[in-house]
Amino acid sequence: MTDLILQSEPLEAIKFAPWGEVIEVSGAPDKIINQGMCGRHHDLAKLDFADGRAGISLFNAKARHLPLTLDMVERHPDGSQAFIPVTQTPFLVVVANDNQGTPHGIRAFVARAGQGVNLHRGVWHGVLTPLEANGIYAVIDRIGNGANLEEHWFTSKITIR
Amino acid sequence: MTDLILQSEPLEAIKFAPWGEVIEVSGAPDKIINQGMCGRHHDLAKLDFADGRAGISLFNAKARHLPLTLDMVERHPDGSQAFIPVTQTPFLVVVANDNQGTPHGIRAFVARAGQGVNLHRGVWHGVLTPLEANGIYAVIDRIGNGANLEEHWFTSKITIR
Repeated sequence: MTDLILQSEPLEAIKFAPWGEVIEVSGAPDKIINQGMCGRHHDLAKLDFADGRAGISLFNAKARHLPLTLDMVERHPDGSQAFIPVTQTPFLVVVANDNQGTPHGIRAFVARAGQGVNLHRGVWHGVLTPLEANGIYAVIDRIGNGANLEEHWFTSKITIR
Repeated sequence: MTDLILQSEPLEAIKFAPWGEVIEVSGAPDKIINQGMCGRHHDLAKLDFADGRAGISLFNAKARHLPLTLDMVERHPDGSQAFIPVTQTPFLVVVANDNQGTPHGIRAFVARAGQGVNLHRGVWHGVLTPLEANGIYAVIDRIGNGANLEEHWFTSKITIR
């Protein structure tokens, strides 16, 4: 593989659909509750666990900056993984398709404040990458036994800008 | 029941433990991941569903202001319910004990920016109440059939300040 320069693009639900959901307030709520004081945007992410159970964790991640070098992507064969910024920190969401165990067709999306993502089970993705500032993220993923992790390290230089 | 004036108090994990967990970054992370760039604070909430499954929704709620009148509390017999502010909006967390189907011993906590809560299954609680500003909250609760809702309306005036 030759060196690659990848242009990041704004995160949009329709573009991101092959790899997961964008968790954001969009359109009218599915239900109005609490005597009209609250709109419920219902069940926005496909949580999918081979075993174990859903849990809530917090990830406290250091800032990175564009352009950056993408060294690796990883995937979790046993469960989906959702990232919801609680500090409204934009972050880079790198995803890729799979070709017989190797990532290809890498895309890089920038989630703006107010957007989270859910990555479908087994999707190749970059590590959590807050942009410009440190960020804290609620992570809803599989709690269970086993490593539930595959990594792919790139041998050529991939730059995301 | 006579009229009651209830003083709200800052949310602290140890005080809140009888009713649920405070979801916040506290102390050292359980695990350092991503080549040292990220701390994982692992599995912070006891998710508990009688049936159905966990889901992620967004609640978009209107601001309220202290002092306020507490008209009712509700509970969800079939599942826990976590609220994580994605807009860093402080919110009021009202909880109560149960006495043969009736709430008693009401407490009112104020969650500051950076704090979410998970309410244990069946805990009496007030509706989502952002303070001073509208707020958006990620809600991790049970997706399933049935109403999963009991309400208790108070006949006397309860003021929270």
